[in-house]
Amino acid sequence: MTPVQVSELFTRVRKNHPLVHHITNYVTVNDCANITICSGGAPIMADAIEEVAEMTGIVGALVLNIGTLNHVQIESMLAAGRKANEQNIPIILDPVGAGATRFRTETARRLLDKLEITILKGNAGEIGVLAGADAKVRGVDSAGLTGDPVAIAKEFASVAGLTVVVSGAADIVTDGKRVLLVENGHTMMGGISGTGCMAASVTGVYAAEVKDPVHAAAAALAAFGIAGERAAARAQGPYSFKVALFDELAGLTPAVLQSAAKIRSV
Amino acid sequence: MTPVQVSELFTRVRKNHPLVHHITNYVTVNDCANITICSGGAPIMADAIEEVAEMTGIVGALVLNIGTLNHVQIESMLAAGRKANEQNIPIILDPVGAGATRFRTETARRLLDKLEITILKGNAGEIGVLAGADAKVRGVDSAGLTGDPVAIAKEFASVAGLTVVVSGAADIVTDGKRVLLVENGHTMMGGISGTGCMAASVTGVYAAEVKDPVHAAAAALAAFGIAGERAAARAQGPYSFKVALFDELAGLTPAVLQSAAKIRSV
Amino acid sequence: MTPVQVSELFTRVRKNHPLVHHITNYVTVNDCANITICSGGAPIMADAIEEVAEMTGIVGALVLNIGTLNHVQIESMLAAGRKANEQNIPIILDPVGAGATRFRTETARRLLDKLEITILKGNAGEIGVLAGADAKVRGVDSAGLTGDPVAIAKEFASVAGLTVVVSGAADIVTDGKRVLLVENGHTMMGGISGTGCMAASVTGVYAAEVKDPVHAAAAALAAFGIAGERAAARAQGPYSFKVALFDELAGLTPAVLQSAAKIRSV
Repeated sequence: MTPVQVSELFTRVRKNHPLVHHITNYVTVNDCANITICSGGAPIMADAIEEVAEMTGIVGALVLNIGTLNHVQIESMLAAGRKANEQNIPIILDPVGAGATRFRTETARRLLDKLEITILKGNAGEIGVLAGADAKVRGVDSAGLTGDPVAIAKEFASVAGLTVVVSGAADIVTDGKRVLLVENGHTMMGGISGTGCMAASVTGVYAAEVKDPVHAAAAALAAFGIAGERAAARAQGPYSFKVALFDELAGLTPAVLQSAAKIRSV
Repeated sequence: MTPVQVSELFTRVRKNHPLVHHITNYVTVNDCANITICSGGAPIMADAIEEVAEMTGIVGALVLNIGTLNHVQIESMLAAGRKANEQNIPIILDPVGAGATRFRTETARRLLDKLEITILKGNAGEIGVLAGADAKVRGVDSAGLTGDPVAIAKEFASVAGLTVVVSGAADIVTDGKRVLLVENGHTMMGGISGTGCMAASVTGVYAAEVKDPVHAAAAALAAFGIAGERAAARAQGPYSFKVALFDELAGLTPAVLQSAAKIRSV
Repeated sequence: MTPVQVSELFTRVRKNHPLVHHITNYVTVNDCANITICSGGAPIMADAIEEVAEMTGIVGALVLNIGTLNHVQIESMLAAGRKANEQNIPIILDPVGAGATRFRTETARRLLDKLEITILKGNAGEIGVLAGADAKVRGVDSAGLTGDPVAIAKEFASVAGLTVVVSGAADIVTDGKRVLLVENGHTMMGGISGTGCMAASVTGVYAAEVKDPVHAAAAALAAFGIAGERAAARAQGPYSFKVALFDELAGLTPAVLQSAAKIRSV
């Protein structure tokens, strides 16, 4: 994926202002709403079984995030997900904390089993656990993965038939055939709550506008990562960094993306 | 309503520090709590059926917001609302996303039917849908209203027997007889999540202190809008705007309100 | 507790990065997550009955906060709390709004009765109500306590067999034998939502690293209060204060703590 393609997709997103339906956790939900707006989309948060399918029917992408999971929410995720699958609306799954408890691991597997997930985005521990590798998750943070994360992600994407994103110093994006590394971002992104959730939201915004989920995820992560780099340059600590992250994402231009995006095939 | 009346009401709010009970969505609830404080009130968020009526019994106003509706919450809204009606405590209803799904539209109608709502505040699409006009809602954003919004709001207020607020470039406030336009605010307020919810909270704070809901809503929207204008002047993007919006609302003075409030009758 | 002990504990927290499991309200949950990170810990928010005990089993401390209580959450608090007691994991209870409604008062008492709470942290009104003193709570704010708060807290701590923290201009920390006053902090901390909840989170982080709950609470409150003092010096209003509070807590050093901590025995 070339920087020109990234900036073209960015421009399309800004023009079309896609709706992204989230069924997500209550910890970072406000951040997800605002990052959706700052990346050019429009957020909808709705999780009642009475309305989730109807809401999903009008959006460009569906983001499922299991950060504060409960059994009521799982049913809503399945109902919204079935609707998304019927209408070929892309689904982004963020399996927050999979590997930390059986409930999270099993729910992530159940969603992967019952729904056609388009993009599965997690940290190395979460993806490793779901891929059946030797991986550990400490709360909601990755605590290590034995083996080559690129090979594990690629194999898992191939077997499961979806696009896998592994967040990290370099983000891995693969559909089992192609592998892209996105080398944008800053360590300060790990110093606040919610950057993982936000990355899934931005990915949802981009996935609503392009059919190729590898391109959607890579462009989204590049844009988000560049915003992080620029925010770090003017932050005085974690929360002023957070404020600047939203400002910088909203202020990105095609020219900045073209010159700063670091996406390469491996 | 004169600028002097606005500043007098502002001073009264700051002195009495009214409690405002919210049953609201989990997306913008923190923003609503903080904006309530910054506008001079004290927020309470409580939604358990075991306590909502008791909590409503001690407050100056009740804000109901259907942004992340579920059936448990509806019962709590009805219980709190009945208590508010018994004790003549004003109720502000923000029908977030009415028109986007049947569940939201029907719930907003049910709350309007079962409770005596004092102030109904929404965007043009939401109010239009509830008024039976030809209106559309895209997620939680207005997507157009056919006809004159002032006439539609005025007629709906008259028939439904409440005060209607339609947010927009100029906010419309009407009880079916009087119509006030509040021309404060800034387009940056539309660039973050939650300004609509926050406007309802500020309205709740003011409604707790004055019997006339038209004056309460107009003064609240003027104060909130002026804070938005001043915040925009020092923002570097959407989130630094958000930070400044709270700061500026908290820092308002009667003199600023008197000179900057733009409220006119039509 | 000496300033040297405070700075030593601070250094240990930063090194070990303890996990803190929260079952908390949806109003300030994001602030609690971020303040946990900024104080050196790692937050987990999980409240489903299916996973709370398993999650508590891997953490250093459990924070229970009844700010937006419901009956489902109470069962999860009890299950997580039992697990914590089995494994000698400290529990911090923040009885938000106890005294404002019967449901909150009774639930706080039930948690104190069924679980061995390590640290009970509230404002003067909440602690007074739970101690059986003549106290009042207005929403979630203290509205007065008749009598000497130090004596009431000390007696209650002794009878109940736990450490009591009473937040205020000077925070009181007592286990019924020792009484420490922490005189750090700034009035701007009362101008935003969530500082009480955040103080409980920071206390959880410190309690995970030291067996003595009096030392944990006093050191945590000193660190949080010093961050507040430093944030106030550069704030332009309540929300820029909030941003600075997180930044300053994250930026604290052992040297700053040693010179600025104001903890004294009474």
